[in-house]
Amino acid sequence: MVAPPYYTVPPQGYGGVESVVAGLVDRLVARGHHVILFAAGRRGTAAQEFVRTWDTPPTEQLTLALPEVVHAARVEALLRAHTVDLVHDHTLAGPLTADARHSPTIVTVHGTMDDLAGVYRPLGSAVSLVAVSHAQRRRAPDLNWVATVHNGIDVDSFPYRADKDDYVLFLGRFHPQKAPHLAIEAARRAGVRIILAGKCSEEIEHDYYRDRLAPLLGHDAVEVGVAGPALKRRLLAGARCLVFPIRWEEPFGLVMVESMACGTPVVALARGAAPEVVAHGRTGFVVDRPEQLAAAISDCATLDPADCRRYVSSRFSLDAMATGYENAYRRVLASPGAAAAGGAFAMRPPTTV
Amino acid sequence: MVAPPYYTVPPQGYGGVESVVAGLVDRLVARGHHVILFAAGRRGTAAQEFVRTWDTPPTEQLTLALPEVVHAARVEALLRAHTVDLVHDHTLAGPLTADARHSPTIVTVHGTMDDLAGVYRPLGSAVSLVAVSHAQRRRAPDLNWVATVHNGIDVDSFPYRADKDDYVLFLGRFHPQKAPHLAIEAARRAGVRIILAGKCSEEIEHDYYRDRLAPLLGHDAVEVGVAGPALKRRLLAGARCLVFPIRWEEPFGLVMVESMACGTPVVALARGAAPEVVAHGRTGFVVDRPEQLAAAISDCATLDPADCRRYVSSRFSLDAMATGYENAYRRVLASPGAAAAGGAFAMRPPTTV
Repeated sequence: MVAPPYYTVPPQGYGGVESVVAGLVDRLVARGHHVILFAAGRRGTAAQEFVRTWDTPPTEQLTLALPEVVHAARVEALLRAHTVDLVHDHTLAGPLTADARHSPTIVTVHGTMDDLAGVYRPLGSAVSLVAVSHAQRRRAPDLNWVATVHNGIDVDSFPYRADKDDYVLFLGRFHPQKAPHLAIEAARRAGVRIILAGKCSEEIEHDYYRDRLAPLLGHDAVEVGVAGPALKRRLLAGARCLVFPIRWEEPFGLVMVESMACGTPVVALARGAAPEVVAHGRTGFVVDRPEQLAAAISDCATLDPADCRRYVSSRFSLDAMATGYENAYRRVLASPGAAAAGGAFAMRPPTTV
Repeated sequence: MVAPPYYTVPPQGYGGVESVVAGLVDRLVARGHHVILFAAGRRGTAAQEFVRTWDTPPTEQLTLALPEVVHAARVEALLRAHTVDLVHDHTLAGPLTADARHSPTIVTVHGTMDDLAGVYRPLGSAVSLVAVSHAQRRRAPDLNWVATVHNGIDVDSFPYRADKDDYVLFLGRFHPQKAPHLAIEAARRAGVRIILAGKCSEEIEHDYYRDRLAPLLGHDAVEVGVAGPALKRRLLAGARCLVFPIRWEEPFGLVMVESMACGTPVVALARGAAPEVVAHGRTGFVVDRPEQLAAAISDCATLDPADCRRYVSSRFSLDAMATGYENAYRRVLASPGAAAAGGAFAMRPPTTV
């Protein structure tokens, strides 16, 4: 299991990929698998072996080329000391090294297809891809997909509350793609207070905050900054609903699952994975246009919080995710090319999906 | 020949690596080699085959991980359509794909060892490295070096002038590592006017300019912004000397060679490759401390401009560089591991240097 180097596994704050990796590792170990985790910082999972790739995660270098390439080179060298059945890679540059490897490589595509198709299309069958949503996979159906596995969460770590407070919640980056301004406008039209928690650190976020968001804030629209794990859970559990008015093809959207786990339905715009993550009319509402968000917020009063949590427990638990990956691993290991890796992928038949 | 994607080959403005690649390609073709150039933008060299990796160079994404990884994946896929004796790679992420390749890979290390040893050390003998200076190579002598080849320039494209105007020149980024403030102080002590031409675009450059450089400017220290190819040549040819007071281990320093080609000696601090690029007492002076720069500037009056140009013609011409690379290519192709590449580099004996 190869994690990106930018945060510890599990992360101490921000780090969605690292959070998913930690949950997956722990569940795989609980199911009897032997897992070697390559990650930065200190050991934090149940993996039988932990290989440290960086003493200190190069967090501030996220998105830069140098740490990404150094990490891939380092992992490749460290991997030589191990014999593995397969490599499950969550990094960007790691797949470049897959073709020289004897064991097959599975890559979870955590990012957006707009960026990543340019990496995976030329790599062909050198790596077997796992999508985190059908929506993500549909955006580049020609790639070497081997499975779609929704991200899972540790449901027990999220508090359930059936009695809700008098607010709705926006939780996410203050970014035009996340569109919290639409959440405020919808909450106002629905006549309910909104709390906004999120990150504002990049230049585009600062600009958006200043130009679009700040003018809308007021006594009924309160911004509380970044919410750590505890505050996030309290805010999620107390909200009448989460408002998720995304304006881009977000590959998954973990916060929707976290919200439903707390018994809090989700009101989302129908972009990215929202339509397949939210059970429309049961655990929230997925609407096409921003003008429909207000009515959907009001309609959440008719939904059953307990059903929201049940839905997550059955569909988005760590066990559901681990089962999905076990199936993907088996499929790749059973494919004809699996044993013949190493410098020959151009000649290998594509893995059957 | 694999160029980075960020500028065309040759570059139209900034782009030191692309400039060196263009000169090398043209000389190799002139010597009868068959060269396939993988690069962005339009064809601009004598390479018999040109494989376009990007329609438009992703210039503004320089240093980011995504274009770097996309480029490496794309080149690897495009390379499959060609049979080559060896791959000469000038990119950062490209070496990650070398081990799966049947032909050997030579990588020119254009950047600083502080950053790049972290890439090449784990890669071991998967790639054969060429240093652009002995100074660069000395900083990580344990790597899989196969040769040191100084960068070369098209000497004829630089004008020679024996009669100099009444100024010295600083040409380079306005950056603390390039230390133009030391050049101004030295010129003042030597009693000669200084012209400064250079880039000021990154945040650190803006800060440096405002805090350290701007207060020193005046009628005897004039800043003219970025100099394009024509102005650069005019400024170099007319200067009594180039002042190159670097404060870091710069791997090469092409501007020193360009200056000497114009018959203009170089006064440098003894960092990086300066001591091996400048012939001390003949084509300039390389001194240890900033306080020594002023006397060195005055002493340049004793040097022979024609000798500076002759020195470049014999040591830093495109032909000298092409000869260096031909020798490196032959050495790698003659090494025992050359034919056995592809997934086995961990077992291959290190290439003899």
